[in-house]
Amino acid sequence: MLRVGLIGYGYWGPNLARNFNAHPECALIRIADMAPARRSAAAAAFPAAEVTDAADIAKAPDLDVIVVATPVFTHYELAKTALEHGKHVWVEKPMTSTHDQARELTDLARARGLTLMVDHTFLFTGAVRKMKALIDAGELGDLYYYDSTRINLGIFQHDINVVWDLAPHDLSIMDYLLGDAAEAVSAHGRGHFDTGLEDVAYVTVFYPNNLIAHFHLNWLSPVKIRRTVVGGSKKMLVWDDLNKEEQIKIYDKGMAVETKEGLYRVLATPRHGDMYAPVVPTVEALKTEVEYFVECIEKGLTPFNNGAAGARIIAMLEATDRSLKENGRVIALR
Amino acid sequence: MLRVGLIGYGYWGPNLARNFNAHPECALIRIADMAPARRSAAAAAFPAAEVTDAADIAKAPDLDVIVVATPVFTHYELAKTALEHGKHVWVEKPMTSTHDQARELTDLARARGLTLMVDHTFLFTGAVRKMKALIDAGELGDLYYYDSTRINLGIFQHDINVVWDLAPHDLSIMDYLLGDAAEAVSAHGRGHFDTGLEDVAYVTVFYPNNLIAHFHLNWLSPVKIRRTVVGGSKKMLVWDDLNKEEQIKIYDKGMAVETKEGLYRVLATPRHGDMYAPVVPTVEALKTEVEYFVECIEKGLTPFNNGAAGARIIAMLEATDRSLKENGRVIALR
Amino acid sequence: MLRVGLIGYGYWGPNLARNFNAHPECALIRIADMAPARRSAAAAAFPAAEVTDAADIAKAPDLDVIVVATPVFTHYELAKTALEHGKHVWVEKPMTSTHDQARELTDLARARGLTLMVDHTFLFTGAVRKMKALIDAGELGDLYYYDSTRINLGIFQHDINVVWDLAPHDLSIMDYLLGDAAEAVSAHGRGHFDTGLEDVAYVTVFYPNNLIAHFHLNWLSPVKIRRTVVGGSKKMLVWDDLNKEEQIKIYDKGMAVETKEGLYRVLATPRHGDMYAPVVPTVEALKTEVEYFVECIEKGLTPFNNGAAGARIIAMLEATDRSLKENGRVIALR
Amino acid sequence: MLRVGLIGYGYWGPNLARNFNAHPECALIRIADMAPARRSAAAAAFPAAEVTDAADIAKAPDLDVIVVATPVFTHYELAKTALEHGKHVWVEKPMTSTHDQARELTDLARARGLTLMVDHTFLFTGAVRKMKALIDAGELGDLYYYDSTRINLGIFQHDINVVWDLAPHDLSIMDYLLGDAAEAVSAHGRGHFDTGLEDVAYVTVFYPNNLIAHFHLNWLSPVKIRRTVVGGSKKMLVWDDLNKEEQIKIYDKGMAVETKEGLYRVLATPRHGDMYAPVVPTVEALKTEVEYFVECIEKGLTPFNNGAAGARIIAMLEATDRSLKENGRVIALR
Repeated sequence: MLRVGLIGYGYWGPNLARNFNAHPECALIRIADMAPARRSAAAAAFPAAEVTDAADIAKAPDLDVIVVATPVFTHYELAKTALEHGKHVWVEKPMTSTHDQARELTDLARARGLTLMVDHTFLFTGAVRKMKALIDAGELGDLYYYDSTRINLGIFQHDINVVWDLAPHDLSIMDYLLGDAAEAVSAHGRGHFDTGLEDVAYVTVFYPNNLIAHFHLNWLSPVKIRRTVVGGSKKMLVWDDLNKEEQIKIYDKGMAVETKEGLYRVLATPRHGDMYAPVVPTVEALKTEVEYFVECIEKGLTPFNNGAAGARIIAMLEATDRSLKENGRVIALR
Repeated sequence: MLRVGLIGYGYWGPNLARNFNAHPECALIRIADMAPARRSAAAAAFPAAEVTDAADIAKAPDLDVIVVATPVFTHYELAKTALEHGKHVWVEKPMTSTHDQARELTDLARARGLTLMVDHTFLFTGAVRKMKALIDAGELGDLYYYDSTRINLGIFQHDINVVWDLAPHDLSIMDYLLGDAAEAVSAHGRGHFDTGLEDVAYVTVFYPNNLIAHFHLNWLSPVKIRRTVVGGSKKMLVWDDLNKEEQIKIYDKGMAVETKEGLYRVLATPRHGDMYAPVVPTVEALKTEVEYFVECIEKGLTPFNNGAAGARIIAMLEATDRSLKENGRVIALR
Repeated sequence: MLRVGLIGYGYWGPNLARNFNAHPECALIRIADMAPARRSAAAAAFPAAEVTDAADIAKAPDLDVIVVATPVFTHYELAKTALEHGKHVWVEKPMTSTHDQARELTDLARARGLTLMVDHTFLFTGAVRKMKALIDAGELGDLYYYDSTRINLGIFQHDINVVWDLAPHDLSIMDYLLGDAAEAVSAHGRGHFDTGLEDVAYVTVFYPNNLIAHFHLNWLSPVKIRRTVVGGSKKMLVWDDLNKEEQIKIYDKGMAVETKEGLYRVLATPRHGDMYAPVVPTVEALKTEVEYFVECIEKGLTPFNNGAAGARIIAMLEATDRSLKENGRVIALR
Repeated sequence: MLRVGLIGYGYWGPNLARNFNAHPECALIRIADMAPARRSAAAAAFPAAEVTDAADIAKAPDLDVIVVATPVFTHYELAKTALEHGKHVWVEKPMTSTHDQARELTDLARARGLTLMVDHTFLFTGAVRKMKALIDAGELGDLYYYDSTRINLGIFQHDINVVWDLAPHDLSIMDYLLGDAAEAVSAHGRGHFDTGLEDVAYVTVFYPNNLIAHFHLNWLSPVKIRRTVVGGSKKMLVWDDLNKEEQIKIYDKGMAVETKEGLYRVLATPRHGDMYAPVVPTVEALKTEVEYFVECIEKGLTPFNNGAAGARIIAMLEATDRSLKENGRVIALR
């Protein structure tokens, strides 16, 4: 039985508490939050757990697992303390404020033989799992582009721009689906309020073999769109996260390419084929993820969404910030 | 009565011929094309017009107007010849292959007192006219961003990339709606076939006052999207060219901004209001445009889509090409 | 302070308990259910309430209000007992199994001066409230038709057909929006499984002045549609309950009618105008409804969704059943 | 070479003329219309054809085929004259004004060994052909229901109601897809203008084995919908004629039925599976139909859309009219 302590009972904390509490191998024995109102809510919902305002539960000797669900700027200190005290760590995304911090935590976990997992919940949805299976099976062929749009009329964050707010979802999905070969980043954006923070941004990520990824992020859109298009040499797919009935559509479309003698060596004509929308299992992603976390701890497995994966996302976010500041300059990722 | 000669009877030529032929102040007296099959088609459809293979009708003394609807690389020579021979010129988009050529034609037309108009047909659609009226009336407030998506499974052009093929529409609409203050361009793109031409591209255009414009252009998309979103401080609009029933939607949405003392000086919260879709007149844009061209000639007016406007689009296309080659470097437009 | 007892803690009961518990003028002091598992759930969620298996809480002297959320066939007995013991009653829809029962309860409540309210929650949604305001203000003009579609791949009920399962929503909305003048009903349907119950049905309701209402109900549809179209002489509206961003669209469309001399006395041509989608408040309908119920009790008001309104819906359901059995015969409602 | 005469050059006539003129086995040698303006248009478009105002070309000895594209009330006389003079006949839908007329023409054509074909163009579209192939292959299993919606803001006809205007399309598609076993019809509708003609109507058609078909027809809808849903025991399909990219969607959905002992003998639970949208060929349906007509004449084949098929549709329309007049009474079709 894993003894679990949760730090942070804000927006996402209650979902974490509920899922860890429900797992048969876990005992949620402590919840910490600085806000009295949130502590009351935690106490009412989880009467068996001790509720405290002490963030130093990261050191508590009676805990095996620390779940960190606090604001980003505190992740590094809390996770580091927990790891140093021999605890497995689940940390919310984005993992840390800097890539150096993310690397340090990753090294620390590896050195101590502890499980460190970054909560990129989307990677455990039926839709992303389905896309991963399709791409890995080669059904799309060679990948040409990855185009993501995540826009709506959003709540402005006060301390991070639209990229740090919205892109971690999409960058981690891309990293999971396309692999870890991203080479460079370029970004443009603008802010329109007196905060100095971008509210509209366009991020391009470059992969080998002319694979290009692009992210449209916007807090100021009158319409809500959450759509990813992936084009390959054999097939193409569209993931519409808002169309729950037909989340993923796979198109047997592409270019029929002929190589010819003469003026134009290549003749590419559109090829139109069937579309199909596979049924996507509707499980609660977070439940699956908690089960996987526990399994990794118990079997000593390294999760695919480990510290190194979390660090890659932070590296891309840092490079995006730098490119935004340097007028879109292409920033190498290695 | 204006005596009109048309050069080029390919994809768009028949529409031009039909509209000039139907105008009460115009006589379509000559049509030139190099292809025998197209000449036969022209002769059958317009029995009153003389049909010829001679491109030098641009010099013909019995013509007042030359309409140039040939491949782009021939526009400059044909238009120049026509202007030098005292004819008014209607030229298809994109206007020329280079900005220098476009400037030269513009100067020549001005010097001779002739009307030179570039056919950006979209500017005469009900939808674009409606958006222009809304923006000019200040209904959107200060503009924040202009985001355009024009993607589908397209026919590959052999001599131009996806930007030169698709972006002239969107750049000319942007130029018309936002005015001529664009300052710089940055672009990324990739080609996936052995032609050296980009089939996917992302183009960013920078305006003063943090107004940012962005264009997503793609010949390899499984879905067809033609959508433009414009965000302003008061309202926002979406133009969906494929939704003929509700082409333009105007959203009374935005950010309610409070300036506050304390930790965060600016508090921006979403403001949700009504949406409305004004009825958009369904006229044939080309008919309206031909009438406007004739009116400009007869009254000696300078069309808003004159050579200078056409040249601005060519300047942006050239800058895009350069930025694509130089890894997204920001290219100033002046 | 109203002392509230809830009978039935199944699908909808927890929502009722939560809302009555949260109301400042109500004390939820007792919850009854026959199933041990549901009693445990109720006890955990509402520790301050007494939980029992005794349905005779309808007679309990320490309760002012009885909320009936049990299967339909038990509504009449429970509500009758509660009213006879001087309690105000909230009863779920459909109100009773027969129109006679519904009338009897209505008369009983009136004779005793008690509040009897039937929970047609949809009538308290922002969308239905908005439509009511528009229609009452005459914005649609004279009403021509009311067309409702409620179809999806649904869970088959074992004791009621698709009409009794789905139509109470739509019939009560129609009754609220169009008033109580419905004159007659006709229905066709078919069942395709060995239960004798219709899984597909079409119900027509006739109003004076050629106003016709129609309901498409289907448990076997591959797509989910919840849409109502209302046509009037001035404007028309579409309510799409699944389009949360644009729930209601009002179209300034109709027929421009000219009366003429000659062969055809009437010339009706389509008139196309603007569409607008007013912002619809997103409140929890059940919360508003509970507040209204308490207000009716405290001020001695008769709720618009009183027993008589509930009885009208039962009358239509009974007439529908009879018409289904008699091959679509038109059944008068009075 | 078949010598073809066309009577009626109104809305649909030009398309017929174009397709017959283009067929290599046909010579379009005569076009008749009573309106001078339409005769001028015909003469300009088909200079090789003789244009006349004489409807008696149905008797002309130099014609092999008569194409009848005049108002419905004239079909019977023209087609009868043509058949009596030994000509093959193509007649527009609806075939005639009464079922007796349709039967008489059918018998006459059979007696004379002539080809009589009713132009239900939709039956030659890629979408309807695809659905026919799917249903005939048993892919949907046993059919449960056929639900059709054809509504928009339409042009009112002066001499026929919304059923005669819109339903021939849908009834002929149903007849083609489901076969000729329809047993009875019931209809309700209302008119809202001073013409006595229904502008909104609901038609139900009954088939053996609990298969139920339903048609929603409306000239007064603010939105345009052209959708057919077909539910079967194995799969279900949706045909959306306005979604050109995904016209037909086939859902591997249905009810998983278990027969059980105990209270409820049948347990039906929703079964959710993949959806796919097969590519639908985009040919001009009318071209295919003209080719089929010529082939039937040349090979002496009986077209599936022969007089008997046309007569079945007229029988349903007549029964609908009668049911509308008799308050929805179910009218047997045999």
